[in-house]
Amino acid sequence: MEHAELVNELAARISKRLERSKIAVPIGVSNRHAHVTAEHFAALFGPGAVLSRSRDLRQPGQYAAKERIDISGPKGVVGGVRLLGPFRAKTQIEISLTDAVVLGLKPPVRESGDLAGSAALRLIGPCGSVSVSEGLIVSRRHLHCSTAEAAALGLVNGEVVRVRAGAVGGRATVFEGAVVRVSNEFRLELHLDNDEANAAGVQTGEMACIV
Amino acid sequence: MEHAELVNELAARISKRLERSKIAVPIGVSNRHAHVTAEHFAALFGPGAVLSRSRDLRQPGQYAAKERIDISGPKGVVGGVRLLGPFRAKTQIEISLTDAVVLGLKPPVRESGDLAGSAALRLIGPCGSVSVSEGLIVSRRHLHCSTAEAAALGLVNGEVVRVRAGAVGGRATVFEGAVVRVSNEFRLELHLDNDEANAAGVQTGEMACIV
Repeated sequence: MEHAELVNELAARISKRLERSKIAVPIGVSNRHAHVTAEHFAALFGPGAVLSRSRDLRQPGQYAAKERIDISGPKGVVGGVRLLGPFRAKTQIEISLTDAVVLGLKPPVRESGDLAGSAALRLIGPCGSVSVSEGLIVSRRHLHCSTAEAAALGLVNGEVVRVRAGAVGGRATVFEGAVVRVSNEFRLELHLDNDEANAAGVQTGEMACIV
Repeated sequence: MEHAELVNELAARISKRLERSKIAVPIGVSNRHAHVTAEHFAALFGPGAVLSRSRDLRQPGQYAAKERIDISGPKGVVGGVRLLGPFRAKTQIEISLTDAVVLGLKPPVRESGDLAGSAALRLIGPCGSVSVSEGLIVSRRHLHCSTAEAAALGLVNGEVVRVRAGAVGGRATVFEGAVVRVSNEFRLELHLDNDEANAAGVQTGEMACIV
């Protein structure tokens, strides 16, 4: 490649990155939570119980329910884990590594839905308990966006990006390996867990950027 | 500046960074802990009580003591906070932002020793309790090194660097704003708190690098 051509290509790439880094990405901090199947919900809350909406989440159709459960591992219990709705085809519990130490479990860092060989645990509800042979994960940092937002940011589904957060509060942190998930069911949002959010000193609604 | 001169200077800077990034920096994860004055220790553990060494820390002369205290804030108590020795001239308690939520306190992110206007809290020992008007902080990420290590890494005291950790475990994270502290009392070590370590999925003894 010619010298001038190389310089031009580098300049174009840097320019794309700089432009993209100007777009503010809202941060959503995921505290520990559980997505459950309708069957597990009935076992935990009794037959005929209804999952009730507490508040809508930023992702369309997703909501925090009023119901909470306890989760139990060999070393301890973490209480008051919020259920999210709607029901899912597989039960999936997402915790932080801080929670994992309390439970005495070693959940893998995984993308949502990728549960094969993830950690087992016990779910405890007011009307019964359920042993789950797999379903406990630490969520891999990820970025939701709609098709239009992905186009504007020059992103494709499955792409892995670096995101920077916490610059304002003095704990600026670059999270590498954030997976981009594009769908018209989604809306622009960077999901971090509690450990990641605290490491960067950020809260839900603050802004990150792709770097 | 001439074009060739600029290219040479950039190449030299990149080369220095690349060389530096090859040097592995051991990570030390700081769980919540307290440095206390001899007076506060006597108030908490009784007159004549002795601070007893449990194990030496990597930083020369510093040790984890056997004694633990509880710390209390308006929303709750965090129990079993390890004391570190030797005694200090000012009592300083270092917690994570996760702990801060439990206590209901908002400690600032600070360098060790920079306690003016930091958060107040109550210390509870087996023989008494002490109210501290300031002294509670979240430790600013920092890197200890000896004079010789600083020279080898091309670092100076007070310099602010970016460190990268967690590449092996799939949670690669770049922590910006890490302060370099150089002293012949020190030994090469990156100090992260529990939130930061969990965000990057690293534990004490794993390696980071300056990027």
